[in-house]
Amino acid sequence: MRNFDQFSITQAVLERIANAPDARTRQISEALVRHLHDFIREVRPTQQEREQGIAFLTDTGHMCTGTRQEFILLSDTLGVSMLVDAINHDHQKAVTESTVLGPFYVEGPPEMACGTDISGGLPGEPMYAWGTVTDPDGLPLRDVIVDVWHSDEDGYYDVQHEEDGTVARARFRTDDQGRFHFWSIKPAAYPIPHDGPVGKMLEAQGRHPWRPAHVHFMIDAPGYEKLVTHVFVAGDVYLDSDAVFGVKDSLICDFASHPPGTAPDGRTLDRSWCEFTYDFRLGPASRAASRAA
Amino acid sequence: MRNFDQFSITQAVLERIANAPDARTRQISEALVRHLHDFIREVRPTQQEREQGIAFLTDTGHMCTGTRQEFILLSDTLGVSMLVDAINHDHQKAVTESTVLGPFYVEGPPEMACGTDISGGLPGEPMYAWGTVTDPDGLPLRDVIVDVWHSDEDGYYDVQHEEDGTVARARFRTDDQGRFHFWSIKPAAYPIPHDGPVGKMLEAQGRHPWRPAHVHFMIDAPGYEKLVTHVFVAGDVYLDSDAVFGVKDSLICDFASHPPGTAPDGRTLDRSWCEFTYDFRLGPASRAASRAA
Ligand SMILES: [Cu+2]
Ligand SMILES: [Fe+3]
Ligand SMILES: [Fe+3]
Repeated sequence: MRNFDQFSITQAVLERIANAPDARTRQISEALVRHLHDFIREVRPTQQEREQGIAFLTDTGHMCTGTRQEFILLSDTLGVSMLVDAINHDHQKAVTESTVLGPFYVEGPPEMACGTDISGGLPGEPMYAWGTVTDPDGLPLRDVIVDVWHSDEDGYYDVQHEEDGTVARARFRTDDQGRFHFWSIKPAAYPIPHDGPVGKMLEAQGRHPWRPAHVHFMIDAPGYEKLVTHVFVAGDVYLDSDAVFGVKDSLICDFASHPPGTAPDGRTLDRSWCEFTYDFRLGPASRAASRAA
Repeated sequence: MRNFDQFSITQAVLERIANAPDARTRQISEALVRHLHDFIREVRPTQQEREQGIAFLTDTGHMCTGTRQEFILLSDTLGVSMLVDAINHDHQKAVTESTVLGPFYVEGPPEMACGTDISGGLPGEPMYAWGTVTDPDGLPLRDVIVDVWHSDEDGYYDVQHEEDGTVARARFRTDDQGRFHFWSIKPAAYPIPHDGPVGKMLEAQGRHPWRPAHVHFMIDAPGYEKLVTHVFVAGDVYLDSDAVFGVKDSLICDFASHPPGTAPDGRTLDRSWCEFTYDFRLGPASRAASRAA
């Protein structure tokens, strides 16, 4: 195998990987080579453009640290994350819709008692969140872990501030009636971190980096499909232009404003506060299992 | 723009980048999104496989240093480098064929007088290399810089040894008759660096990492198209399975063996040595310029 031209090179690479021991690795490798080569033949990059592409990927890799995942930002902003999400979740009416995980999830957040204020004293409008976790028929799921994380009123996550510890991030456990509730502060819309290669890409593509305000939820109950989703704040100006294409109408929620006074759990507030509620319905685990098979 | 499914998400991303200020950036971005999304829809990755893909790219980025370029290895082993090379060089009979640059070129190598031995005293079979640089009609090109670099007899480049300085790497200048000549040692076949993510990929794909023995040349003369190529050692067992698909018959050269004695330049050798010669023909720069237009 020698003397390849711009068409025979593709066949040569495919023949070389035809003996990959694992069938799935072979399938993914073959598809990658075909689409990648088709892309190259379509745009006909110069050598300089190829070098720019390699420099972009290298810079993106070098930007990745323990608290910054630039390749997730790239996957999110190119719509790949939501595409993979859509492929893995045929929408069923009775099950809560999913959206991107995003780059700010941290493994093993602290478990807190329901009702805890997780804002860690950050400034912002107090927010009371409550809801339930049920099966598709609305039957409550008890003792289920509800992971929550969100930005502060300036749009930053705790991991973006070196000085902070864990703030606006916790796990709760549903009670006998599948309920959870907690206090925090209202999150703000935020630009995804755009001081790196992905930010430069967005700028070159004529795009803004903003995401509408949201609270992240991840709910993983035994026997049910793991749910990764957001609750979006109704009325946000970026709902129709989310930089990562994550918004679904069913996930938009009214964050109702209240004057100073007493909240449903008896807490007294001397300033205005807001409240939202969401009932999460988990699909059966068999959906995920049958797709993987 | 909300509520995307696995088909409408592609249109949504394309609409978002439709206003990229630079037409070429828009073209490349649009093609990338289409082929990337088609790839994803074809292989239907699980969330775990998407995470593995992101981890692979991240590891590849973290492997890149000043002397190790893992993304070039990835481009080379997926056939992308040779594909881009083929797109940019319609083969013309009278012009020397090109091949991959590879990851081991170092900017600004030292210029040496013709005849210099650049082996730096490394062990190996002495190699005498000579040839000419001409235009497509065979007219000699004088005062042209000829960049040369190659591996040692164990298949390693100087940059892969921390302790070494510049060895087996230099620039020569053609004389009035377009000639150059130098001494070094015969290079060996070598595996591309495979202790990183690309090595793991090759293993998973059931491939070996070897390249047939070769000497790299880069020749850049004003008014002519820059030539990046190799001269391959005839008879190498890897000529038909080069890990980066770079072999062309016209670049394979007999490295003739000689018994101890006197070489053409008068040097006396008390051990056997080898010799190769190659006449490089450069195409006019207008070919490159017209393609870029
Ligand atoms: Cu494609
Ligand atoms: Fe977020
Ligand atoms: Fe090489």
